[in-house]
Amino acid sequence: MTDERESGWTLDPKYDANGLLTAVITDESDGAVLMVGHMNAEALAKSMETRTAVFFSRSRQRLWQKGESSGNVLHIVDMRIDCDQDALWIIARPQGPTCHTGARSCFYRKLTDEGLEPV
Amino acid sequence: MTDERESGWTLDPKYDANGLLTAVITDESDGAVLMVGHMNAEALAKSMETRTAVFFSRSRQRLWQKGESSGNVLHIVDMRIDCDQDALWIIARPQGPTCHTGARSCFYRKLTDEGLEPV
Repeated sequence: MTDERESGWTLDPKYDANGLLTAVITDESDGAVLMVGHMNAEALAKSMETRTAVFFSRSRQRLWQKGESSGNVLHIVDMRIDCDQDALWIIARPQGPTCHTGARSCFYRKLTDEGLEPV
Repeated sequence: MTDERESGWTLDPKYDANGLLTAVITDESDGAVLMVGHMNAEALAKSMETRTAVFFSRSRQRLWQKGESSGNVLHIVDMRIDCDQDALWIIARPQGPTCHTGARSCFYRKLTDEGLEPV
């Protein structure tokens, strides 16, 4: 099934019941996934305007610019949207580590049959 | 704040209110994001068991193996989980195009100030 949202050239995000899109951030240098966050319409507009990643925090129920306290901002290089417009892929240039643990990426563990292991 | 879920070596997914995790699929060949889907506990178990991506369809409310009808299966190379264990990064070897539109990736459009453009 192809519709205007899928095949058209108009940005028409399909927000979920909480008004959010999923946003995947990858590093422009090597494609590593750095983090996954959520954006409401305001966060998306702020991200496009500032060219830095701004999310909506589900736990704090407020907008936050990634790096607002740590300084580890994500500079946006390119933004893409998927077929049904409910997910964003943002290619970014990270200023410092992305994860609040200090790791470069939030995805610092891999799944094995025995549990988790460091990447 | 560091806790066992963040720093430990036990797989302990933090499912959302609908019992789902976000799963990002990238292509092992070049790191392109191919799609974003959702997995419940059963989909995650099936994915690990079959080493192919199995999702939970929110629209159809059932498990589906990506490629079950098209044949375009995603062979899992590596699976990673993020700091708070509510998102998965799956590095995959795609068998054919991933998007149901026939595109290699669901992210075939980029955002510009004027709307969307082909990547």
